Amino acid sequence: MCHACVIENVKTSMLSRRELFRGAASVGLASAAAGVISARPALAQSTGRVVDLTHAYDGDFPTFDGNPGILYSSQFEHDRDGYKIWELTIYEHTGTHIDAPLHFAADGASVAELDPSSLVCPLCIIDIKSKAADDPNAMLEPEDIEAFVSANGDIPQGACVAMNSGWADKLGTEGYRNDADGNFTFPGFSKAATDMLIEIGAGSIGVDTLSLDPGNSADFAVHYSWLPSGHFGIENLANLDALPVSGATLFVGAPKHKQGTGGPARVMAVI
Amino acid sequence: MCHACVIENVKTSMLSRRELFRGAASVGLASAAAGVISARPALAQSTGRVVDLTHAYDGDFPTFDGNPGILYSSQFEHDRDGYKIWELTIYEHTGTHIDAPLHFAADGASVAELDPSSLVCPLCIIDIKSKAADDPNAMLEPEDIEAFVSANGDIPQGACVAMNSGWADKLGTEGYRNDADGNFTFPGFSKAATDMLIEIGAGSIGVDTLSLDPGNSADFAVHYSWLPSGHFGIENLANLDALPVSGATLFVGAPKHKQGTGGPARVMAVI
Repeated sequence: MCHACVIENVKTSMLSRRELFRGAASVGLASAAAGVISARPALAQSTGRVVDLTHAYDGDFPTFDGNPGILYSSQFEHDRDGYKIWELTIYEHTGTHIDAPLHFAADGASVAELDPSSLVCPLCIIDIKSKAADDPNAMLEPEDIEAFVSANGDIPQGACVAMNSGWADKLGTEGYRNDADGNFTFPGFSKAATDMLIEIGAGSIGVDTLSLDPGNSADFAVHYSWLPSGHFGIENLANLDALPVSGATLFVGAPKHKQGTGGPARVMAVI
Repeated sequence: MCHACVIENVKTSMLSRRELFRGAASVGLASAAAGVISARPALAQSTGRVVDLTHAYDGDFPTFDGNPGILYSSQFEHDRDGYKIWELTIYEHTGTHIDAPLHFAADGASVAELDPSSLVCPLCIIDIKSKAADDPNAMLEPEDIEAFVSANGDIPQGACVAMNSGWADKLGTEGYRNDADGNFTFPGFSKAATDMLIEIGAGSIGVDTLSLDPGNSADFAVHYSWLPSGHFGIENLANLDALPVSGATLFVGAPKHKQGTGGPARVMAVI
């Protein structure tokens, strides 16, 4: 059969089945029709609203050490080669990215060794905007977790617990990283809070700032306890305001280069 | 209240609610209990089985041009610095990765500009192992799509259609990329097939080989038509055998560096 004929056949077939399904559903015969049209009709695969929690980034994105987190070198160009490819130099911990256990534990899991089932999980968002507005080095504390559970119910086993400090709105200003004197200044988790999350079985944590620890941390207590305990973290999350505080499912698109200590990730949620 | 007391409080509270929910569900009172225990009980957020479709990769992973796709340079080390970070040089099109429209269209969308809703989609897997075993440059043709639809039902709007040629099993051998004479040799899509997929509304395509076009392609017809039509592709998929041919939801963790033509991605499916 000619290709055009095959296409017409498939389109006609798909269309007629869709019409059948619509008709059947409208008169309450969806279950009977399901066997006729398909074992898995398209509607069964529909997903909810997708919210992208990832900042687009380039060399201007703020980094912990202040150097550009990504450099671009042209390898092939449309005009000359007919297609385009960049060679990228990437500092692992830039943009919206993962901290794997290996980042702070010599014997910890690399980003390629994270359990895939830990990368699709329930998302709980704890809002500390009010105290972060008063203290830009505010910490998410056990009391904030307690208040969240009281108001919203359990933190599911393996959930990602994300801090929403309102800091994503500061991206593009000095205030995302520094105070007026140039000192690191942003909210983070307290070690007491992440110790509590280990006890109650959370799987990962996320922050809408540059670091799991607050900007004025001298000891990186969360990095040196949470990551070596076998958990991962996500830094520089975007768009947490677009989600309910519980009920969304998080997809953590962690990179998978061997021996990686982390790296730029695509993080999305489905409501 | 002391931190230990807060943790005990939260654990006791979570435990008692779980017991209540279990008890209520067992006597058919789940809906009544739901209001008591939480608007969104943890069970409502449970996800299905996660299948990782991403190869772990390093500089040994096969690439189209034969050069290492990633180089590692140590930036910080545990022994010296207390933590570890790599600086990575990454050729965008290595490992399990995305081809964005910009890769083959000067005015095409970059990988950072892909619609996030296109990155969470139904997955349809078309098996061409039998003809690929006979012809290592076999192409997925319109007839294969027609046979898939006849057997499995519609290809949902926005779906990713993935070719399973069995090539993932060859990874680690010369046969993943080359024939005995060193010529590119692996299956891919035909342009007639991807033209058909454009017509019927598929969102993306994926292959378990090095390229959307077959290894012996002289004109890269799929790259030069599918990508400029505003669609993306995924190359070097893993583990397609672990999934049903329809019914899974795909999560495409595309990187989000500005102006990117694609790049290493974390691709997972949930059944």
